[in-house]
Amino acid sequence: MKIAVVGTGMVGETIGSRLIELGHQVAMGSRSASNEKALAFVGKHKTGASAGTFADAAKFGDVIFNCTKGESSIDALKLAGDAINGKIIVDISNPLDFSKGQPASLLPALSNTNSLGEEIQKTFPNAKVVKTLNTMWCGLMVNPSMIGGGDHTNFICGNDVDAKSQVKALLKEFGWKEQNILDLGDISNARGTEAVLPIWLRVWGATQNGAFNFKIVS
Amino acid sequence: MKIAVVGTGMVGETIGSRLIELGHQVAMGSRSASNEKALAFVGKHKTGASAGTFADAAKFGDVIFNCTKGESSIDALKLAGDAINGKIIVDISNPLDFSKGQPASLLPALSNTNSLGEEIQKTFPNAKVVKTLNTMWCGLMVNPSMIGGGDHTNFICGNDVDAKSQVKALLKEFGWKEQNILDLGDISNARGTEAVLPIWLRVWGATQNGAFNFKIVS
Repeated sequence: MKIAVVGTGMVGETIGSRLIELGHQVAMGSRSASNEKALAFVGKHKTGASAGTFADAAKFGDVIFNCTKGESSIDALKLAGDAINGKIIVDISNPLDFSKGQPASLLPALSNTNSLGEEIQKTFPNAKVVKTLNTMWCGLMVNPSMIGGGDHTNFICGNDVDAKSQVKALLKEFGWKEQNILDLGDISNARGTEAVLPIWLRVWGATQNGAFNFKIVS
Repeated sequence: MKIAVVGTGMVGETIGSRLIELGHQVAMGSRSASNEKALAFVGKHKTGASAGTFADAAKFGDVIFNCTKGESSIDALKLAGDAINGKIIVDISNPLDFSKGQPASLLPALSNTNSLGEEIQKTFPNAKVVKTLNTMWCGLMVNPSMIGGGDHTNFICGNDVDAKSQVKALLKEFGWKEQNILDLGDISNARGTEAVLPIWLRVWGATQNGAFNFKIVS
């Protein structure tokens, strides 16, 4: 599959590398076509990787992974322009607010009665936003069996049922088992999954270990 | 132990009944000494239960369980007055905002960069606030072995180390195992545990089952 990864940080690098490992073609998008991290990503992979602007990447991909920082996701995706229309955006970012001390809080305009996932969907009504994977460290996103035999929970939500099915197929390629992917419903449920961050950051702080995830026990 | 339970809803009734079952003496406090639910609670238990005003209960208890609705917790505890000074408040409430549709959001003034737990501590600087149990259905609070062999996570936080130890002892009486009680640190970590509610409510909505809890898998 042709996939765009927008955002060149650790999350984008991890997602992009795993997708290439799985045989997909990945275009990494950034503000500038000569972004050093994106070019390093291309250099690291012998085949399957390319780099370009946000618009270049969005044009290339049938699915777009949003791996930008939550505070700048909307702006970054806007730079991708019309290429986004009709495509699936897998939104794995969080609206973290680093301006009010540590651990980060959530951006007031994008939390509680709103969410980044919803805001992206509102901004791009012709895209199909699927929120998932945002509740854990990126190493686990693409390799859940690293802990607990892979038996822990990944949430998914979005308005388009078919888009969610397609994203679930990719999640299974990453190693997620059907029974551990919990569909919460429409994209407004991103209010719930993004609200995991305040507890996630504190568990991380208390345990000094980011390789953990939440499991629903019932 | 002499324990005050303030709040006569399902949570207060569940906590109070379990404490009596464990051999503690419980005073249930409410706005009026003739509160019907509190009197029914006393009638249900042959020994160990009493009822009174918030102040009566707080005077009686060495430990005070706050089981009021989060939106009115501060006011209810203020009615208890000076009796609160020096005592442990086990805060198991959540600052839910039911005014903006379902599922409930969090009260803006008591979430994100603040929390109900912190606000109670600020309001009663001479009390020792310990936040715990607020991330699950009340049936599980007092009987964790109901699911998954009791092997799931209960968070605790508060500024006073000794008060947390005393509350942990009570949690163990409820059936919580040491390794499943995760101390996050000071009371500001209530920002994290109260932020569990937006995801809790949505998991409940999706699964139609409230008898679940989160487990940290690592």
